[in-house]
Amino acid sequence: MPGSPPGLSWNLIQQARERIAGKVGVTPVLTSATLDAQVGAQLHFKCENFQKCGAFKARGATNAVFALPESQARRGVVTHSSGNHAAALARAARLRGIPAYIVMPDNTVQAKRAAVLRYGGEITYCEATLAAREDGARALIAATGAILIHPYDDLAVMAGQATAAVELLTQVPDLDLILCPVGGGGLLSGTAVAAKTLKPAIRVIGVEPAGADDAARSFRAGRILPSLKPETIADGLRSALGERPFAEIRRLVDDITTVSDEAIVRAMRQLWEVMKIIVEPSGAVPYAALLADAPQLRGLRIGLILSGGNLDLERLPWSAGAPPP
Amino acid sequence: MPGSPPGLSWNLIQQARERIAGKVGVTPVLTSATLDAQVGAQLHFKCENFQKCGAFKARGATNAVFALPESQARRGVVTHSSGNHAAALARAARLRGIPAYIVMPDNTVQAKRAAVLRYGGEITYCEATLAAREDGARALIAATGAILIHPYDDLAVMAGQATAAVELLTQVPDLDLILCPVGGGGLLSGTAVAAKTLKPAIRVIGVEPAGADDAARSFRAGRILPSLKPETIADGLRSALGERPFAEIRRLVDDITTVSDEAIVRAMRQLWEVMKIIVEPSGAVPYAALLADAPQLRGLRIGLILSGGNLDLERLPWSAGAPPP
Repeated sequence: MPGSPPGLSWNLIQQARERIAGKVGVTPVLTSATLDAQVGAQLHFKCENFQKCGAFKARGATNAVFALPESQARRGVVTHSSGNHAAALARAARLRGIPAYIVMPDNTVQAKRAAVLRYGGEITYCEATLAAREDGARALIAATGAILIHPYDDLAVMAGQATAAVELLTQVPDLDLILCPVGGGGLLSGTAVAAKTLKPAIRVIGVEPAGADDAARSFRAGRILPSLKPETIADGLRSALGERPFAEIRRLVDDITTVSDEAIVRAMRQLWEVMKIIVEPSGAVPYAALLADAPQLRGLRIGLILSGGNLDLERLPWSAGAPPP
Repeated sequence: MPGSPPGLSWNLIQQARERIAGKVGVTPVLTSATLDAQVGAQLHFKCENFQKCGAFKARGATNAVFALPESQARRGVVTHSSGNHAAALARAARLRGIPAYIVMPDNTVQAKRAAVLRYGGEITYCEATLAAREDGARALIAATGAILIHPYDDLAVMAGQATAAVELLTQVPDLDLILCPVGGGGLLSGTAVAAKTLKPAIRVIGVEPAGADDAARSFRAGRILPSLKPETIADGLRSALGERPFAEIRRLVDDITTVSDEAIVRAMRQLWEVMKIIVEPSGAVPYAALLADAPQLRGLRIGLILSGGNLDLERLPWSAGAPPP
């Protein structure tokens, strides 16, 4: 379309693959005869919970950091995430030998601060509002000349996240469908571009918590409809859908479905119990979509992106004292 | 030695490999740059927590069940384990299409009963004493003609457990050392025979909870010294050392070391947090041996057998309300 901004191209994804090779992990694809029998389909779990930093975010952050020209890179990178992107950015910056400035709300949980500090990120604390976080980032950029790396509304980040699907389709070429969690849309948009380029007939479906369903509503409306007050146990999926991701999602994704928090917790528990792997609530969201009887999926070969495995092991959602789902 | 009973031969292990191929899983070997850096060695984790039934026990039970002559097999198999062996035996019996009779103390936890029932095992409940369990098994054998499959004091079971080490050394041939948990000795004896046959220079060290240290004490004394009252969070390792396993362990194992319950819980938590895999306390025991500073292990290539991943997710040892380690 004349005048429209450039989107996520296959070329950007190929560059990302080469750029991050050896800097992030190639994650395994696990299967489970028990879960296959239960669902009546062939499930292939792409274990991004085993990725560096425990989440796919390592892919996008590493690509974005290593794509910077040297003159820009040496002044450092900034973000104001309190989640997996912050740790991934700190790690990528350390790999390149440049500073990472992370603005974090002062109520961030200890485990997430610790992850950023472990990778040498410099934390600036701020009040727990979006305005305070953005102000904090702006002040750091003004003071240091560092560049903002957005957690998902960024083509280099999206191209990096897309490499998970490229890898998955190399490992299991004959998938019929990929189920992918959606929050800000970085992973889903990358997955859609990669999968539909490699295999035009494949279906890509986004799965979103019902309590943070801006992507599902926006997908139906054809324009971004923000969530006013997202509430879900899947803390990685509370983000507002980004514009650049949405452009690809509209174009390529087949559907976006929603799941309840109760289904997310049930799915997470089944993955832990049966597969013996630790998946965070956001990562269990694609499997949650399969818990309801879905005769139309029977017999299909389905890839599920288990996006991450970072959570507080003191407060599991099924333990006494846990917040209600 | 003239008159000594036959031991675990390499031939039995090779037969076990062929017999159970396709009936149990080939488990992956995982690595972690974070844990390698922490320990100062190259760690290779053999993930038997991903094995069928969630533990290496599937190997030995499957080999024992499929090694039976048809005339004996059709009358079924019996055991009086309340743990992973019971579920593994029930599964193997179902695969062969024969009955499995499991004697279980009436205080067995729900999850373990459920696992046996899922595989079609017939449970007979009894009082929670060893005498009642043995009486129950004897009565079933008399009534049905079924054969007892001991969880570890059995050459076919030991040969099956040995296949985990054969697989590990195929996946990572250049190991210097294998660390293996020891309870009744089935896994450790099999590991020692397999590893020393394939690679005579390799070291094999057993690791045991300090609160159930009969194998360590027996190893030093040169004869079986039973534990009177084993107390450890590693419920899979409370069993009394078996005679047939001990004969191989004495002959081939380089050392048996002990670890505290506190170290086991710390090890288990690190494996969960860093590797994102679910390992039960018994399975974390080999890694617990590496938590203390061990300069003599620095730079070595170490295989660790993560023996299983079955535990009650409601009561994690670091959660409020958990029993003290």
